[in-house]
Amino acid sequence: MLREAVTRVQTAQRELAGLTSEQKNRVLQQISLQLQDSRDRIAEAQQKDISQAEREGLSPPLLKRLVLNDEKIDTLCRGTEDLQRLADPVGRVISARELDKGLELYQITCPIGVIGMVFESRPDALVQIASLCLKSGNAVVLKGGREALQTNRVLTDCIKEASRTCGITDQWLCLLETRDEVTGMLELDDLIDLIIPRGSNSFVQYIMDHTRIPVLGHADGICHVYVDEDADIIKAISVTLDAKTQYPAVCNACETLLVHRNIVEKIFEPLAESLREAGVEIRGDETTRQHIACKPAEAEDWSTEYLDLILSVKVVDSMDEAISHIHTYGSGHTECIVTENREQAEAFLHRVDSAGVFWNCSTRFADGYRYGLGAEVGISTQKIHARGPVGLEGMVTYKWKLYGTGQVSADYSGAGAKPFTHKDLKQS
Amino acid sequence: MLREAVTRVQTAQRELAGLTSEQKNRVLQQISLQLQDSRDRIAEAQQKDISQAEREGLSPPLLKRLVLNDEKIDTLCRGTEDLQRLADPVGRVISARELDKGLELYQITCPIGVIGMVFESRPDALVQIASLCLKSGNAVVLKGGREALQTNRVLTDCIKEASRTCGITDQWLCLLETRDEVTGMLELDDLIDLIIPRGSNSFVQYIMDHTRIPVLGHADGICHVYVDEDADIIKAISVTLDAKTQYPAVCNACETLLVHRNIVEKIFEPLAESLREAGVEIRGDETTRQHIACKPAEAEDWSTEYLDLILSVKVVDSMDEAISHIHTYGSGHTECIVTENREQAEAFLHRVDSAGVFWNCSTRFADGYRYGLGAEVGISTQKIHARGPVGLEGMVTYKWKLYGTGQVSADYSGAGAKPFTHKDLKQS
Repeated sequence: MLREAVTRVQTAQRELAGLTSEQKNRVLQQISLQLQDSRDRIAEAQQKDISQAEREGLSPPLLKRLVLNDEKIDTLCRGTEDLQRLADPVGRVISARELDKGLELYQITCPIGVIGMVFESRPDALVQIASLCLKSGNAVVLKGGREALQTNRVLTDCIKEASRTCGITDQWLCLLETRDEVTGMLELDDLIDLIIPRGSNSFVQYIMDHTRIPVLGHADGICHVYVDEDADIIKAISVTLDAKTQYPAVCNACETLLVHRNIVEKIFEPLAESLREAGVEIRGDETTRQHIACKPAEAEDWSTEYLDLILSVKVVDSMDEAISHIHTYGSGHTECIVTENREQAEAFLHRVDSAGVFWNCSTRFADGYRYGLGAEVGISTQKIHARGPVGLEGMVTYKWKLYGTGQVSADYSGAGAKPFTHKDLKQS
Repeated sequence: MLREAVTRVQTAQRELAGLTSEQKNRVLQQISLQLQDSRDRIAEAQQKDISQAEREGLSPPLLKRLVLNDEKIDTLCRGTEDLQRLADPVGRVISARELDKGLELYQITCPIGVIGMVFESRPDALVQIASLCLKSGNAVVLKGGREALQTNRVLTDCIKEASRTCGITDQWLCLLETRDEVTGMLELDDLIDLIIPRGSNSFVQYIMDHTRIPVLGHADGICHVYVDEDADIIKAISVTLDAKTQYPAVCNACETLLVHRNIVEKIFEPLAESLREAGVEIRGDETTRQHIACKPAEAEDWSTEYLDLILSVKVVDSMDEAISHIHTYGSGHTECIVTENREQAEAFLHRVDSAGVFWNCSTRFADGYRYGLGAEVGISTQKIHARGPVGLEGMVTYKWKLYGTGQVSADYSGAGAKPFTHKDLKQS
């Protein structure tokens, strides 16, 4: 039954792939209108979800994430309006080349196909994800948090209704409601082209471990700040503080601080004071503990994503040691060097193998909105397809269109073969 | 032990990533010299491999693939020289953006890391693959065919020797020799970033089924030619013949011909005659058999990659039916429409979801060299990362370099947030 449902989604995607930018934007506009018209229905569903969650004793932070009030609906509507203004990622000419006279090759972006999206709790994510998929011509199979089921149903209805109003299929999105369906979805590698999970590390890791479908995302986000011997003390402290404390619960927050031995004397005291003032618990290696009073960092601290006001601190003898530490314990997310030495900075940025490599600024800038990508699907620590913050461009692939006039390969092979011209064509 | 070996490869890759284009080209040049100097050693190893293979009764086509004679060594040397002339895929600026004054973001290509390459028989593939990896800054763990073991050892030695001569690490390539090592390699998803298998369908499928590492490649290549009702008969026949017979054993050869009902009367007789003259066995659906004498096509024919002079033929009522057949039975490799109707052609190219969509030319053009990509790693039918023929550009990923002057995210958040400028920078 799931297979049949997802097959319908795949068929609908092929209709979606044929829509013009104007048609897709019109549906986005209609989704916004539909949400505004459905405030009462959403409120009703919210009440059911929230009282159920309270009965089940959901923790206050999770309860808070569950809320979709008028203000959040307004934000969602603004989001779909912003999305309309972004360039259509589909149909972009990546390359254009004449192979021979009358034989022209175009590499053109197109939707990936069917996206499987599994996310936890926050129901507004459903609308954001579905909108991004629509804009990029992808169909989507969604599974949201169990706690938000009633709300997710209403939101799905709104989007389907908006699609019908605009005269397009409403089968391009499909809401799954059970865990078994998610397990089933992970097996449909002939129907689903990409899985994007959003949620806790263990949740994402579980998805990655249980499917042959490509997965876009990240499990851990263990980001490092390395304070070089040539660092400006003020910058080092403010970058470290911001990277650790501005929003500790997110993947681009800093978890480990690496400090060059030659700057320890100057920086440790004011740094430790600032961190303590901000309520940060320090866990230091042996050398660190010789300079400041703090808990010891155990072996597992270096590979722990605290997502909390805790910072592990290690003193290193050289940038080489810092880079080696990052490659050993990091997750390839985002790392920063603080230094006034441009050559040293360039070497760090070149050598560190992470999605984001920063010089003299907070790791917290690793974010699709801040990068100016418009909307963000998530942050990938993988090296294949898309890396770092992934915007609409990560939701398309490309195809090769070859326009001929009867050419056959035999004429370009063997003795007396016609040569190819391989001339770049002007891209319109 | 395998883990230790591949860890050394990963370490060596980090050295490789720091090489300049000139350094990499110098090693390529040295590989070419080293091969020429090693003709005797290669011939000796060849003799051992070939007599062993003959004793084991290897089939003549496989024996032929095993041969690495002087002529093939010359071709290999020319290949590494051509590769030197190609642009370095590493260090290319994909995008450059000012986020704010003094905060600049660059999206820059970089190597993927460690590539796992598993290929069958042909020992020249070892040199081609290693050269492509070197040029793109990737290290490589290789497993070639068992039959070519002695030759592969000598070739590996040559490349390592050339690396040492140029003063770089020789640990960036590692030859595996047993099946168990391949099984072990497929589990090293923390060390190996991408697997590229080259070989039979079942072999590639096996690899895809047994690893969590991303795989780039294709299993089946079931390509279609669709002859539209508005087709030019001469073009239709020559494209079909070329696509089927120019080299039937390869993935971009045509396996199924779809013919619009309205053109059957005109095309079937001359087409069938040409195919028969070329020694092609036709397997037709019921309608086809009403027009020409041929074997019946069974259900499994539509999803069979013959790799031989066999062509399944089906009559369709419309382009819709043709596209639907392609989506049902195709492998997403390459499909061609033959028609004089441009609108119809554009619709086909837009709607068919395959890596290559061609108009009035043979499917055999789906090839990295013919596309002008320079060298080709393989052809991918996946939609993630790279699709269709994959050249050097498919062997790199990118990182985001952010150059700041002490910026922290708190200044761009909440009430009184500084706005981002998000201004595109001129790319040098």
